[in-house]
Amino acid sequence: MRQSQLFTRTKRDFPKEEESKNAQLLIRGGFVCKEMAGVYSYLPLGLRIIRKIENIIRREMNETLGATEILMPALHPIEKYKKTKRENIDVLFHTESNTGGHFVLGQSHEEVVVPLVSNFVSSYRDLPLGVYQIQTKFRNEFRAKSGILRGKEFLMKDLYSFHTDEEDFDRYYKKAQIAYRNIFNEIGIGDKTYLTFASGGTFSKYSHEFQTVTDAGEDIIYLCSKCGVAINEEIIDEQKECPLCGLTKDKLEKIKSIEVANIFPLKTRFSDAFNLKYKNKKGEACPIIMGCYGIGVSRLMGAVVESLSDKNGMVWPESIAPFKVHIIPIDDNSVSEKIYTDLNKQMEVLYDDRDKGAGEKLKDADLIGIPYRIVVSPKTLENGCVEVKRRDKEQAELIKIEKIKSYVK
Amino acid sequence: MRQSQLFTRTKRDFPKEEESKNAQLLIRGGFVCKEMAGVYSYLPLGLRIIRKIENIIRREMNETLGATEILMPALHPIEKYKKTKRENIDVLFHTESNTGGHFVLGQSHEEVVVPLVSNFVSSYRDLPLGVYQIQTKFRNEFRAKSGILRGKEFLMKDLYSFHTDEEDFDRYYKKAQIAYRNIFNEIGIGDKTYLTFASGGTFSKYSHEFQTVTDAGEDIIYLCSKCGVAINEEIIDEQKECPLCGLTKDKLEKIKSIEVANIFPLKTRFSDAFNLKYKNKKGEACPIIMGCYGIGVSRLMGAVVESLSDKNGMVWPESIAPFKVHIIPIDDNSVSEKIYTDLNKQMEVLYDDRDKGAGEKLKDADLIGIPYRIVVSPKTLENGCVEVKRRDKEQAELIKIEKIKSYVK
Repeated sequence: MRQSQLFTRTKRDFPKEEESKNAQLLIRGGFVCKEMAGVYSYLPLGLRIIRKIENIIRREMNETLGATEILMPALHPIEKYKKTKRENIDVLFHTESNTGGHFVLGQSHEEVVVPLVSNFVSSYRDLPLGVYQIQTKFRNEFRAKSGILRGKEFLMKDLYSFHTDEEDFDRYYKKAQIAYRNIFNEIGIGDKTYLTFASGGTFSKYSHEFQTVTDAGEDIIYLCSKCGVAINEEIIDEQKECPLCGLTKDKLEKIKSIEVANIFPLKTRFSDAFNLKYKNKKGEACPIIMGCYGIGVSRLMGAVVESLSDKNGMVWPESIAPFKVHIIPIDDNSVSEKIYTDLNKQMEVLYDDRDKGAGEKLKDADLIGIPYRIVVSPKTLENGCVEVKRRDKEQAELIKIEKIKSYVK
Repeated sequence: MRQSQLFTRTKRDFPKEEESKNAQLLIRGGFVCKEMAGVYSYLPLGLRIIRKIENIIRREMNETLGATEILMPALHPIEKYKKTKRENIDVLFHTESNTGGHFVLGQSHEEVVVPLVSNFVSSYRDLPLGVYQIQTKFRNEFRAKSGILRGKEFLMKDLYSFHTDEEDFDRYYKKAQIAYRNIFNEIGIGDKTYLTFASGGTFSKYSHEFQTVTDAGEDIIYLCSKCGVAINEEIIDEQKECPLCGLTKDKLEKIKSIEVANIFPLKTRFSDAFNLKYKNKKGEACPIIMGCYGIGVSRLMGAVVESLSDKNGMVWPESIAPFKVHIIPIDDNSVSEKIYTDLNKQMEVLYDDRDKGAGEKLKDADLIGIPYRIVVSPKTLENGCVEVKRRDKEQAELIKIEKIKSYVK
């Protein structure tokens, strides 16, 4: 894509009330636009990243978990929440229809998915079942000041699984951890993201979060370096030690983090509320065991910015970068144009064809953070070369023009 | 895909209060699930269709119109609607935040896109500009009884264009009509869909709708068979004749239809409200001329069902069908399994591996409406053949197994 055709621009300033690093950088780079606290628009560069994150998640849901994608609505009738006694939770947005209906905006979809699934599931033969969606969620947040990390409106993948018994659920729950681990590894925050023991509510011992270590985190976790897992501060006083190796609280590392995902054994909490049962081989009606598995899509984009950016801007991993290569022509343009046309056939290239000085272009390239920067200048061309620099490395290299493709592949 | 892995099932019944043909068939086929009047979930078969419609629209927006995709939020601060004096329109859903904010749910995005674009557009060099999104809209409908044709919550593509002057706007507006025409042609309702003159509000002479002729329509249009355009009933009394050829009202055909899309010259109605201006070559600040262009994504799915189904079920055009081929094995399964595995590498195939009788499978195949049905039975195999029937044709043909691929290609 020609950068001149990108209607967004980098900016030096950002909304003054914006405190978070992720939103500051994403706004300055032209990835998002702030509508109000906790509500953002995704601009072309940002939307490309969102779509890539979605597709990585989608692949893991389909292939690792054999789950099926659906799309549920945001408007939910309050009556269903009365059945689960969640009609008064404070993060719900409420609205009313002109015909007297009282709806809430979905912040999670147990109240919708359980009645939906009950249309189709009746026998042990229909289980296990995993259905998920990638959809916009609404949370009536009291404070939404962490940029796209904690939004009033945000993109989320939520998966719900249905099982005949606890053993089958346990297998799926462990597979879900593998799928999530694959996702975090692929988007470049695997080494900073820890499976974290958290409260299981009133009906399960634990739930699990995936927490990414960063100074911007609003959560505190206690890290067990021996097991590579963590304990959320909310349960550390009752838990007191690593649930895996027994290392005591004082030996664990207290550290700030962001919750990027959450998996939760629901037992029969929601299937009971909607009387969702299956018939076993003997024809007896039995309760269905459920799990739910959330992952914040827009939040992941923010977590990557918090984790991987440096003082000059963002540093996108190739897997989710809006483009793979950023070509910066300096002075001479005919050769760079040719390199662009050629590379663009094989990979995603942003070509800075704007009428700007070298300094501004290089500064913008660092801010936008595309993995490979290729500078084409009269000086590099003297030896038939371009200068290639990876955004996550200090050193640039001179590469012969005919070698570019094999170098960036 | 193996049909046994599809968690949905066809049904004989559907919600009793559901009057519309589109929802009846889509619910019976397992394409959608009704949450409440005007609010539906999209199940795997339905979501596949939605994604294909989205991609056809996306391609036309990108390629024919050179527009750029973004994603704007559903929560809008009421303050912006006060600026455009739209805070009291009755189709808005309202909600309040825990911190005292008053929001409406987006039913259109002029109030969001104009301030957004004003961050980036300042010069004639930045124009023309077209930005669009495919996003969930909310309308506080008084009556939502036409299935997915008129929803409280629905998927829509909305495009907004920005221009230096009326001539430039006119060119774009005409190109948008071509893009829309391409979309309707590709999804199979082109021959039933008419460009329709409608009210331009208080500031434009006309807006234009695309109306698809069907008995399920809630609109009435007057068709000029000579020009292939129509006039919406709402303006027929003041318009009185075809705006193109002057044929008088009594010569026009009065007919029911569904509005599947709408394009609207906005002049400076919204750019003025937010003081969006550009600087011309002389450096003078000038008003920006706008247009908006909507198309109902989920509504299009409903319009196709209303237009193309028959008494046995749905009839999907290949371009948006959830699968291209539906393989129905009868009795013998080893050959059909091989045909499935083979075809599935090259195209989208649904394979009815369920343990059901031939009658039920064939009935379901008609209801689901996949373009090519391939029956593999001991009888067809006697001659090394399968029976191939197009869903939109009466006649089935016996085709040699080795010829299947070239036949359905």
